[in-house]
Amino acid sequence: MVASRIRKEVDEALYAFVDRQRPLLDAVSGDLAPMLAALDSLLSGGKRLRPEFCYWGWRGSGGEDRPELFTAAASLELLQAGALIHDDVMDGSDTRRGQPAAHRRFEGLHAESGWRGSAEAFGAGAAILLGDVCLTWCDEMFQGSGLPDEALRRGRPIFDLMRTEVMCGQYLDMRGQARGPLAGHAMVEEALRIVRFKSAKYTIERPLQLGAALAGSESVAELSAYGMPLGIAFQLRDDVLGVFGDPAQTGKPAGDDLREGKRTVLVALTLERATTAQAQTVETLLGDPALDLDGVETLRSIIVATGALDACEKMIDGYTADAEAALAAAPLGAEGREALSGLTVVATARTV
Amino acid sequence: MVASRIRKEVDEALYAFVDRQRPLLDAVSGDLAPMLAALDSLLSGGKRLRPEFCYWGWRGSGGEDRPELFTAAASLELLQAGALIHDDVMDGSDTRRGQPAAHRRFEGLHAESGWRGSAEAFGAGAAILLGDVCLTWCDEMFQGSGLPDEALRRGRPIFDLMRTEVMCGQYLDMRGQARGPLAGHAMVEEALRIVRFKSAKYTIERPLQLGAALAGSESVAELSAYGMPLGIAFQLRDDVLGVFGDPAQTGKPAGDDLREGKRTVLVALTLERATTAQAQTVETLLGDPALDLDGVETLRSIIVATGALDACEKMIDGYTADAEAALAAAPLGAEGREALSGLTVVATARTV
Repeated sequence: MVASRIRKEVDEALYAFVDRQRPLLDAVSGDLAPMLAALDSLLSGGKRLRPEFCYWGWRGSGGEDRPELFTAAASLELLQAGALIHDDVMDGSDTRRGQPAAHRRFEGLHAESGWRGSAEAFGAGAAILLGDVCLTWCDEMFQGSGLPDEALRRGRPIFDLMRTEVMCGQYLDMRGQARGPLAGHAMVEEALRIVRFKSAKYTIERPLQLGAALAGSESVAELSAYGMPLGIAFQLRDDVLGVFGDPAQTGKPAGDDLREGKRTVLVALTLERATTAQAQTVETLLGDPALDLDGVETLRSIIVATGALDACEKMIDGYTADAEAALAAAPLGAEGREALSGLTVVATARTV
Repeated sequence: MVASRIRKEVDEALYAFVDRQRPLLDAVSGDLAPMLAALDSLLSGGKRLRPEFCYWGWRGSGGEDRPELFTAAASLELLQAGALIHDDVMDGSDTRRGQPAAHRRFEGLHAESGWRGSAEAFGAGAAILLGDVCLTWCDEMFQGSGLPDEALRRGRPIFDLMRTEVMCGQYLDMRGQARGPLAGHAMVEEALRIVRFKSAKYTIERPLQLGAALAGSESVAELSAYGMPLGIAFQLRDDVLGVFGDPAQTGKPAGDDLREGKRTVLVALTLERATTAQAQTVETLLGDPALDLDGVETLRSIIVATGALDACEKMIDGYTADAEAALAAAPLGAEGREALSGLTVVATARTV
């Protein structure tokens, strides 16, 4: 099945689930409409990468196309939605997928309505609750997918692990940012460790394994050899795009990761290689919420001049090559291997 | 089975689940220890009311005592933990169950460790993530309870509905506080509507129905006639204790609900009956974070003088009587009816 067709099936399953919840919320109160509107807006974007890897884990392990699998796979988009909504509250991000972040939408509702108290606190509170709704709907959708009980029971340990891992990875990331940079190469190692738990497992390894486990694969663990390096390459690419990407494609303002002060592998590579003067400039500008385009350009030029961008691209190439080699030997059918080879390119492409 | 024995079984199931997660987090990183410590602290308190109602829904519908049921029932404590942690972030509460609120614990960790950036933002972020972990563990624990698939399938719609309802009720509550008071009796009606969705269903009606559904009851819907009025009486009692309760018993500083500015039914009844001068005093003091004991006493005396406390006590008596009458006719065995009669007293008692 081609990617566009998978995406269509995933979207249909996702929207069908949300549409079934709509009357339930309407029955409670019409005042809940902004919750659904914020969710609709968020779900209209996104690349559906996790469901797609889940699908190919299933298909590559001999599973037949069936609507129940698309429903189970699409449930991962609700986990991702909940994680993004909460992430944006924590980071104070303004935009997500080219739209205002959920908490900013609710802030706007508060301001427009002329309500009392802090619009910011209302926005954050409403977004925390919407994220909570997404997290519980994720599991409601997965468990209610209609897949046979024995399939769900096989998938559950991975489904559960994935959710705990992404939240723990997020905590470790936040803790690392708060603790401040380590010296030299230890900083790169630490950033890579967080990438493993927060992104690589969550985005690629676990979804792929989930699909395989649902299909009854006996070789679930072996898929890590492909999923983990590709997941790292994917996140490193995302970090590069967060600094150098085209806002029209990333859905985020130019250099937004720099403004948020994200201590990515790319930043760690930069600081590892920087002169004292360069390092001081990075530490001054990185994480400045008022960072303008000149400041973004200054940081970009240091990232390039130190050789960090080249080093990061080399790492991406290396992890991608590891993933491709592992894929060739992976316990997956020929069709699955071919499709995943295409996805490997998509996940690590220089444009999104 | 007596209440203390049920509580013991519920506690054992709860701690056994958390203990099984512990090595998983340790394996990711020792830096996750504060997450588990904050959860342990929160779970050491609480009355386990929801699991107890779930147990009696099961037992009253002919279910036999079995460890799997205690596990499924105890999972509701993780939902409650997640809701409380997020609620405390949203309300900026300092304490919970006599301990520092989770976000304050993480704030303290940040400050003690001498980390960079805002301790407050770190505290809120870590607590959002810990609440997310609790929400996903709730469903992991419920689904992994070991109850037969057909029992879980019967319980699922109520389990799912309950989770969506509590989050939506929370949103409506927050929205109501932001929009500001309605005039006269409409304010009381509005506060009662939120009590129904946010508390009554979530604390009593749904847990009871969940137990009954798991046991295969054909009369799940009929349990609302008991669960809903008792749930309302329970929340009204909680509101009274939030203003007049003994801090040693409530685990919250005296008058904390007043300091947080909660627009409870009790407050609505007060404003409905207040003179212009009294209403002005209430509007000035209510929600003042720096409200001292004198201010608390002033508000208490207005709540008493307007007759709002008496009116609230009458409502509690009325809803409790409705619940007792419904219980006598409820589709539950004699043992279940007797136990729930005792729980009715506990849930609405003037001391906690």
